[in-house]
Amino acid sequence: MVNPKQLAAAIAEASLLRGDFVLRSGRRSSYYLDKYRFSTRPEILGPVAELFGQRIGAIAAELGPIHRLAGAELGGIPLVTATSLKSGLPCVFVRNQKKGYGTAKQLEGDLHEGDRVVLLEDVATTGGQALEAVGVIRAQSADVAAVIAAIDRQEGARENIERDGIRFEALFTKSDLGIDE
Amino acid sequence: MVNPKQLAAAIAEASLLRGDFVLRSGRRSSYYLDKYRFSTRPEILGPVAELFGQRIGAIAAELGPIHRLAGAELGGIPLVTATSLKSGLPCVFVRNQKKGYGTAKQLEGDLHEGDRVVLLEDVATTGGQALEAVGVIRAQSADVAAVIAAIDRQEGARENIERDGIRFEALFTKSDLGIDE
Repeated sequence: MVNPKQLAAAIAEASLLRGDFVLRSGRRSSYYLDKYRFSTRPEILGPVAELFGQRIGAIAAELGPIHRLAGAELGGIPLVTATSLKSGLPCVFVRNQKKGYGTAKQLEGDLHEGDRVVLLEDVATTGGQALEAVGVIRAQSADVAAVIAAIDRQEGARENIERDGIRFEALFTKSDLGIDE
Repeated sequence: MVNPKQLAAAIAEASLLRGDFVLRSGRRSSYYLDKYRFSTRPEILGPVAELFGQRIGAIAAELGPIHRLAGAELGGIPLVTATSLKSGLPCVFVRNQKKGYGTAKQLEGDLHEGDRVVLLEDVATTGGQALEAVGVIRAQSADVAAVIAAIDRQEGARENIERDGIRFEALFTKSDLGIDE
C-alpha cells in the first residue's frame, strides 16, 4: 500500500528546487519541480504508478472502460510506461513534433478510432502541453476521458482542461509538496 | 520465466513492418522495426525489461557493480524506465538536444562522477545514437560499462561501439526476429 503523505515528501525531497526559473510557459517562478529527479528513481516512480493506476480504476468504474493510456514526451513517457506496466493497459506516446524518418507521425504506438484514453502528465501548470496532446489524440478519432497529473502547480490547468470538457485530476498539489508560494 | 523465442516472435509480430523506409542514418531499408509497437505494450515490455535485467546482473557479476542505467530519447526511455523498475537501479535520460527552459541540460536525472552506467538502446543500427549518448554520459565523468540493445540490426553497431572500448550486447538480432535480409 502506498502512503501518499510519505510519497509526497519523497517527491519534494527529490525534485523541488528553489531559485529563479523560467517555465515552459515563459513565466518566472521561485521554484522548479525537476520531475526527472523522481521519475528516474524506481522507489518513487513505482508508487506514483500505483496511485495513477488506482485513479484510472476509479475513473473506469465511473465513466466506463479505459482502453489506453497516453503520455507526452519527454516527461510523460516514464510515467505512462510505469503505469502501463502496473495496470496492464497499453499506451501511446505523443511527440512534441514530427520526426523526419521512418514512419513519420506524432503519435507512437497503436491508437484505434473510438479508444477511450487517459492522459498522464508530470507537472501541470496551465495545462497547455496536455491540451496539445489531447489534440493529437482527438485527431485520431479517439476520446480523452481524463487527464491525470502527478503534480498540479494550481496555475490554471484544471480550469483550462475542464473547459475543454475533460476531467482533470492530480495525485498531488503544490501544497501537498509543502510549496506555499 | 521469459521464453526468449516466444518473446522474439511477439516482438516481430508487433513491430516488424515491410516496405520502403529511410532510416535515421539516411540509408534505405526494406523493413522497419517500429519499436514503439512493442514498448507501448506492457505484456511485451515487461519480459523485455526482465531480459535486460538478467544481462545487467551478468555484466555486474563480471565487471563489478553497475550504479545506474541510461536511455536516450525517445525510444530508450520506456526501456530504461521498465528496466529501472524491475532492477531497482536508478536511471538517467539522455536528450537529443538541450531544452531552453527550466534547468537547461542534456541529461535528466542524477549522475555522479565515477558512476558505472549501462546504456539501453532500442534498435541498434550503426550505433551512432548510442555513441552520442555515451559522449553525454562521459562528459559528466561517468563511465559506460556496456551498451545493451533490444534488437541488433547487425549493421555495424557492435563494431563501432566495441571500437570505443565499450562492451556491446543485444537481446535479439534481426535473425532472431525472422529477418533474413
